Amino acid sequence: MIARASRCAAAVVAALLFAAPVPADEGMFTFDNPPAAQLQKAYGFTPTREWLDRVRLAAVRFNDGGSGSFVSPDGLMISNHHVGIGCIQNLSSKEKDYVGTGYLSPSRAEEPACPGYEVNQLLATADVTARVLGAVKRDMSDAAAQAARKAEIARVEEECSKKTGQRCDVIELYQGGMYHLYTYKKYTDVRLVFAPEEQIANFGGDPDNFTFPRHDLDIALFRAYENGQPVRSPNFLPFATAPVADGELVFVAGNPGSTARLDTMAELESTRDVFVPLALFFVKGRLAALEAYARTGPEAARRAKAQILGLENSRKAFQGRLDALQDTKAMAARAAREKAFRERIAADPQLNALVGDSFEVVAAARKKGDVRLGERLIGFTGSRLLGHAGTIVRYVVETKKPNEVRLEEFTDGSLASLENALYSKAPIYDDMEVALLTAQLELVRERVGAGHPFVKAVLGTRTPEEVARQAVSGSTLRDPEARRALIKGGAAAVDASTDPMIALARAIDPFARDYRRFAEEEVQAAITRAHQKIGQARFAAFGTGEPPDATFTLRLSFGTVKAYPYAGTQQSPRTTYYGLFDRSAAWGNQGPWLLPARFAASKARLDMAQPLNFVHTADIIGGSSGSPTINKAGEFVGIVFDGNIESLAWDYFFTDEKGRAVSVDAQGILEALRNVYDATEVVKELTDARAAAGRATP
Amino acid sequence: MIARASRCAAAVVAALLFAAPVPADEGMFTFDNPPAAQLQKAYGFTPTREWLDRVRLAAVRFNDGGSGSFVSPDGLMISNHHVGIGCIQNLSSKEKDYVGTGYLSPSRAEEPACPGYEVNQLLATADVTARVLGAVKRDMSDAAAQAARKAEIARVEEECSKKTGQRCDVIELYQGGMYHLYTYKKYTDVRLVFAPEEQIANFGGDPDNFTFPRHDLDIALFRAYENGQPVRSPNFLPFATAPVADGELVFVAGNPGSTARLDTMAELESTRDVFVPLALFFVKGRLAALEAYARTGPEAARRAKAQILGLENSRKAFQGRLDALQDTKAMAARAAREKAFRERIAADPQLNALVGDSFEVVAAARKKGDVRLGERLIGFTGSRLLGHAGTIVRYVVETKKPNEVRLEEFTDGSLASLENALYSKAPIYDDMEVALLTAQLELVRERVGAGHPFVKAVLGTRTPEEVARQAVSGSTLRDPEARRALIKGGAAAVDASTDPMIALARAIDPFARDYRRFAEEEVQAAITRAHQKIGQARFAAFGTGEPPDATFTLRLSFGTVKAYPYAGTQQSPRTTYYGLFDRSAAWGNQGPWLLPARFAASKARLDMAQPLNFVHTADIIGGSSGSPTINKAGEFVGIVFDGNIESLAWDYFFTDEKGRAVSVDAQGILEALRNVYDATEVVKELTDARAAAGRATP
Repeated sequence: MIARASRCAAAVVAALLFAAPVPADEGMFTFDNPPAAQLQKAYGFTPTREWLDRVRLAAVRFNDGGSGSFVSPDGLMISNHHVGIGCIQNLSSKEKDYVGTGYLSPSRAEEPACPGYEVNQLLATADVTARVLGAVKRDMSDAAAQAARKAEIARVEEECSKKTGQRCDVIELYQGGMYHLYTYKKYTDVRLVFAPEEQIANFGGDPDNFTFPRHDLDIALFRAYENGQPVRSPNFLPFATAPVADGELVFVAGNPGSTARLDTMAELESTRDVFVPLALFFVKGRLAALEAYARTGPEAARRAKAQILGLENSRKAFQGRLDALQDTKAMAARAAREKAFRERIAADPQLNALVGDSFEVVAAARKKGDVRLGERLIGFTGSRLLGHAGTIVRYVVETKKPNEVRLEEFTDGSLASLENALYSKAPIYDDMEVALLTAQLELVRERVGAGHPFVKAVLGTRTPEEVARQAVSGSTLRDPEARRALIKGGAAAVDASTDPMIALARAIDPFARDYRRFAEEEVQAAITRAHQKIGQARFAAFGTGEPPDATFTLRLSFGTVKAYPYAGTQQSPRTTYYGLFDRSAAWGNQGPWLLPARFAASKARLDMAQPLNFVHTADIIGGSSGSPTINKAGEFVGIVFDGNIESLAWDYFFTDEKGRAVSVDAQGILEALRNVYDATEVVKELTDARAAAGRATP
Repeated sequence: MIARASRCAAAVVAALLFAAPVPADEGMFTFDNPPAAQLQKAYGFTPTREWLDRVRLAAVRFNDGGSGSFVSPDGLMISNHHVGIGCIQNLSSKEKDYVGTGYLSPSRAEEPACPGYEVNQLLATADVTARVLGAVKRDMSDAAAQAARKAEIARVEEECSKKTGQRCDVIELYQGGMYHLYTYKKYTDVRLVFAPEEQIANFGGDPDNFTFPRHDLDIALFRAYENGQPVRSPNFLPFATAPVADGELVFVAGNPGSTARLDTMAELESTRDVFVPLALFFVKGRLAALEAYARTGPEAARRAKAQILGLENSRKAFQGRLDALQDTKAMAARAAREKAFRERIAADPQLNALVGDSFEVVAAARKKGDVRLGERLIGFTGSRLLGHAGTIVRYVVETKKPNEVRLEEFTDGSLASLENALYSKAPIYDDMEVALLTAQLELVRERVGAGHPFVKAVLGTRTPEEVARQAVSGSTLRDPEARRALIKGGAAAVDASTDPMIALARAIDPFARDYRRFAEEEVQAAITRAHQKIGQARFAAFGTGEPPDATFTLRLSFGTVKAYPYAGTQQSPRTTYYGLFDRSAAWGNQGPWLLPARFAASKARLDMAQPLNFVHTADIIGGSSGSPTINKAGEFVGIVFDGNIESLAWDYFFTDEKGRAVSVDAQGILEALRNVYDATEVVKELTDARAAAGRATP
């Protein structure tokens, strides 16, 4: 599975497009600037405004890091199992393990609500560049400019929120060359309709993750509700009636998280040498802790399952990125492009004056930031209780400040989403909390060193495990009402609280804030301003037309269903149910290739030749998980759930020589719902929707 | 499919083992020096003398370039379809295309004989090193030493032939460090029992060739006869009753053609820069001509099929070797090993005196040979008629000479095999002859240049096509009796012959002889002597224990059934019939992935989970095709038919990181014979044999 997007990573890993020309199918385009000319030229197809509007409104963002789409007029949404696994796990218990057994709601009336879920639908976008950049005066320092921008953005969002009653986000595009205001319809009553067994959603497990050929039914169905009723969703994607053909043009509408395709070489080298190794250190450390916890018993294994999957995924993704950055040939090509661009700047007095020492500024800022990068690990991650405690400690302080000087996640426009997560009823397991918090404190200590003031202040003479055990066992925060009471009590209540987890969060907070201030004001602010200048030079040199880097907001990309060379032959662009049974049998039906009993039992009913997964060249990245794959007719032909191993380089360089996005085929989904899961009502809803859409658009 | 071995290539591409230690499962061992210590150490298994003798006598060599084995006590032999395709094609006609439809003999009495076939069984080996090397005096020139060796070898073979009545070959091992006399039982009445459709034997065609995962039923069954009766073959390999397990120890007994694992760097570089590019030029040129011919109609396509398959195979194999030689990392490692070895020699006065300038001699000789290498294309290949004419023209001259000074293939020990091929009733198609001969003459002209004396003498002012057309249309040699008459008439008849193909062969002969003399006496003789010295230094430095390079004679190698990393995951060590149906469906059941109708129709009867192909780490190379894969119990568990793309480097460097041999699984074979082909009698023969063997060795 492609990694779920992290908005944080999207904000930190900066990027700027300066490639010209871009390869054939590269690009994640905004819906207000679709690749109409490219499509017309390459495929003789131009999507109409109606087509674009319907697809935009059918596409949704799952706010814990993925994408999805409406597939019926009654609010039925499809996403990936790995995007929805948090909900599935939170609805599970020791007695009812829906991750292991799968889940099918007996009837529409019984669909259970996902705790703390939020899904967004993009209603409108507007250009607010002039207003945001107008707040920055020429003689401001980097930090002051940053503060001014942030304040203006907060004001814009707040005004919009008040006016529309919707979620409003200002999105930085082209690395600060452009700011757009996105207005979202927000669904917070999201209920689970169907999930297959994790074993088939993630068939092949960690070994097959990020690879193709693949055999995963990585889907889950949800329904959006309002006022206790399924929402009407007239803009939905009807399931296509036939599988995609080789060479067919397909689209992907989703929320790619972040790319760094046009970072400077200095940034890529720092990413390669410092950032990714740190990320791997962290992911491997937490994974080891969770695996050790999972080995303590079957219930622990069940509880840790979703997080282990996510961490294995991250480990493989970061390793793939490291491999891409260590590919000397690709890096040399990248360096040559930067060299040519800089020579062009040098040859043009106007560009030269504009850019000045921006490349050097970026390099120096990254170098400065790298020295303290290990402190990124200081924060409120590692346990759900600590996460809640950290939110509470900051909430009562931040919300007292004027909106425009608050930490980003506490601005008025973001508060509702934050509260939705804070009051979530998702279960909290003390033993797992202790394991995770212990690991977190150990990892920080190992990275920043035992002599670091953070370690002295937070641990003192105690071991990480002692601190974690004491904070978890004494905390009342596992009850959402206790969290609500502290928020209600405000700063006084929080300051007076003797809850040990609140105390721990209070101890951590100054160090986390100090590092964040350093990273934002002393590192990122300089980079942002320099990027802006480099980006302007790029526009001046090469013109516009290319899409901005990914920002976990709605984008449209396109490509074709296409085989690719591998291991001496051609990898066919699809797999079938035959392939699923082959891979299972070839591995002795064991480990990650164990076929769920339901599939083995349905052998005779299954049409084995039905396509299960297919690949295409549409540009995707982490966060695209769950994006609908759409044909020219605007029908749902599949759902993106991964990229192959070669696509991991797409964080930094797009190439469709071998890199491919991987989708579950719509026909394979119907085949399983019908002949494995007997999901009669769901199939009827999908085929009725299909028939209705057929009548509406003949 | 791995390339069929060329004895010629084995003789030319020289090699010597000087690696110590060899990787775990490297090595193609002679049966008189089996890897007992390695096996005991790594697997706790030591094959007994009885085990070795039975396997040796069960293994056979198919003399047109492959291996096989007895699998019943009644002379039933199994080999690859691609090894036996010459027979299958020669038994076919426009009306009965057994290559396309497959063939199953209705009864034992009706098994048709393969024209011109010869199969060998190794009866005995003896060390004749002292005698062969004793013929060489110290003060002889390289050429004189070469002649003396050749003469002694011819004498040894002749004496043996007379004494035993069997085929006798002296084999040069360790590049002249050792000479062994091999005595073979020869079967020339070989009949076809069963062949599947080429479409399933070679499923996936050229794209999937040399790759894994694979789904090929690349087998054919033959029976050896003597005096019109099936031979008794008490030493046979009973089919195992269960598929191989992951990690299981397996053996391969077959006739690997040639390796160049320990060529000097100078030789490898010459191979990379001159030899392989020439081979690719030639293979691509002939392939283009045959493809153009095949496009003229379905019957032409049928006639050209077997050769096209062989050429596609060679093209991919040579390309893979070129890729291996252009792998700078692997070549650097190879260079480092040579450097270390040469430093060791330099540090030891005795070794230094022995080796002298041998490395420089080898390099200089290769350089000298490379200048004229294009003339290798001058000869009697390109059309069957020209091949026969060339044999006749030389036969009447060579057989008048004393045995020991004849060209190698005309010595008494080789004559019977040569005559078997010369009087073959294999069909000859005039239009294909013209196409091939034209291409051959064009390729020679392009490579040696229009001004070369050969071109002037043979073409004069005529075009290659005119020469070819006239020689083919006027020739009587398509009748085996006409060939016999010329041989009978001797030099007088041949000299007087006005047959235009004989005239063409007479014109070509002096040029071909001149180049051969140059290559043997001025190039190879010096290399052979230098290799001998380097090899002696190697023995002195590292001791013996490693097997000699491959020489298209019987060898035993071993390895384990083992997955390997690929494209981000693990390639399972086997495929099943599910996988066959998957790959066909994934490609729309088209082109090389078209499933024969018989398979599609047998879907319900087939046990799809049965293994079809599997991979293992046993060391193989071209010529190993058709080798039985054997378990510790001495049972037939499969048949080698290919290596994956990563194994193509094994010509030069063995590595089991990703390189694997590919076998058809014995259980998959039985499954198809039973449930696709209804080959009841054959299955009964195999299972009866199995039962009898079970009783004999409980």
